[in-house]
Amino acid sequence: MNNSALGIFDSGVGGLTVVRAVQELLPSEHIVYLGDTARVPYGSKSPETIRRFSDEDVRYLLTQNVKAIVVACNTATAHALPMLQERYQIPIIGVIEAGVEAVLADPQTQRVGIIATRGTIHSHAYQHALALRRTGMMIVEQATPLLVPLIEENWIDHPATRQVLDTYLQPMLDKHIDTLLLACTHYPLLVPMLQEMIGDRVRIVDSATTCALHLQQELARLDMLADSAQIGTLSIALTDLSEQFEILAKRFLRKCPPLIKRVEI
Amino acid sequence: MNNSALGIFDSGVGGLTVVRAVQELLPSEHIVYLGDTARVPYGSKSPETIRRFSDEDVRYLLTQNVKAIVVACNTATAHALPMLQERYQIPIIGVIEAGVEAVLADPQTQRVGIIATRGTIHSHAYQHALALRRTGMMIVEQATPLLVPLIEENWIDHPATRQVLDTYLQPMLDKHIDTLLLACTHYPLLVPMLQEMIGDRVRIVDSATTCALHLQQELARLDMLADSAQIGTLSIALTDLSEQFEILAKRFLRKCPPLIKRVEI
Repeated sequence: MNNSALGIFDSGVGGLTVVRAVQELLPSEHIVYLGDTARVPYGSKSPETIRRFSDEDVRYLLTQNVKAIVVACNTATAHALPMLQERYQIPIIGVIEAGVEAVLADPQTQRVGIIATRGTIHSHAYQHALALRRTGMMIVEQATPLLVPLIEENWIDHPATRQVLDTYLQPMLDKHIDTLLLACTHYPLLVPMLQEMIGDRVRIVDSATTCALHLQQELARLDMLADSAQIGTLSIALTDLSEQFEILAKRFLRKCPPLIKRVEI
Repeated sequence: MNNSALGIFDSGVGGLTVVRAVQELLPSEHIVYLGDTARVPYGSKSPETIRRFSDEDVRYLLTQNVKAIVVACNTATAHALPMLQERYQIPIIGVIEAGVEAVLADPQTQRVGIIATRGTIHSHAYQHALALRRTGMMIVEQATPLLVPLIEENWIDHPATRQVLDTYLQPMLDKHIDTLLLACTHYPLLVPMLQEMIGDRVRIVDSATTCALHLQQELARLDMLADSAQIGTLSIALTDLSEQFEILAKRFLRKCPPLIKRVEI
């Protein structure tokens, strides 16, 4: 048992979808969340820069005495996780392994579409992780860099978003994918529109939700789950504070966030 | 006369539209360009963070022995220019004054629409600057945060972009604006689509181009223009380098950029 907080970080506030899933599954865990909103997004930046920023994020969380760290950002997981796991002693968990498990949960899966930021797609991290676990699947990857801005504007039911999704998804649908993996922690907010657009033909899998399950298994394995009598708290630190980030935080968390503080890292 | 280089900075590579205009008008000027691509965009961040980043941008340019600095970013001009002008001795010129002059160049102008990032709009910097120079004009402001991502994806003739512009512009058109001010250095790339959509009804004014004229006047006034026998050079430094940024640089500059180097600031 370990009652110290979990550290969870993301380039911005999108990772709060992971926080929400963790709170639902593991309500006794204290959580310290860091969003690097001063430098958001990571998804369009170079691997070197993503690794540097992720390292600084982890160092901040270590000053908060966390027991384990969740990288709640697919781009940071894709480019920085192996380096972080090598560099630091405490358990560091990414979102990719969880996304891969969610895809493979259905043994019928044959044709997988993956949508993500340009950074995640260029890393081919999902493709490699899937190929290691099951051979013979067809994988179609598509960078979808406009989705994060559209979600951050809350245009989640706007016709322009539908048109953007149409443009991104059509090549995948032409290849008859049976599963669509949402490989960015922002994308769960698009599930209603995606369900409506393709839900009858394609299974939609979301790495944010699955990540909480993966985390639970890891903490149990390491005997690091918090005392179930404890009531978990959440604290949120952002590297830049603005009204817009507070609005977004509420949307991703689906409830009013606690007092958010600004930190320099 | 002063043959030292001009320093020009922006949050990313959008400010290269200003560089292009300066090169056309002032071909003898050496230019050192800094794009803070590691932390782009500035437009969605807080005034404090924008001021801190802009200050670091200026400090970098000062190490390059520039004779004057152009803030080729509307958001940074809106929030940081007064502070920068107070803090540093050398001439520092923003894009807002130029945009305002361009609007007022037509004495018939009565109803002005302004589109820009959320940061620029929230500052009301254009509204204040226009009101100081001419009273009685109607000004309609609209934050258009999705335009930068669409332009950076080069979706400058995509139906989704048209739909996004429609959503943003309709309230302005309903108020019968006679002039539309593009108050972001990215937006000149949308001029063809805008011309097609509203060009017969509305004069489109772009601050990037006008900024070069304003700079020329300022340098002449201060006797700081370069020797006209000199052939100007351009060097580009970015805080993050990626293939995508190189593609974008070429698009904004409308030619192959020189070798781009990465710097830490």
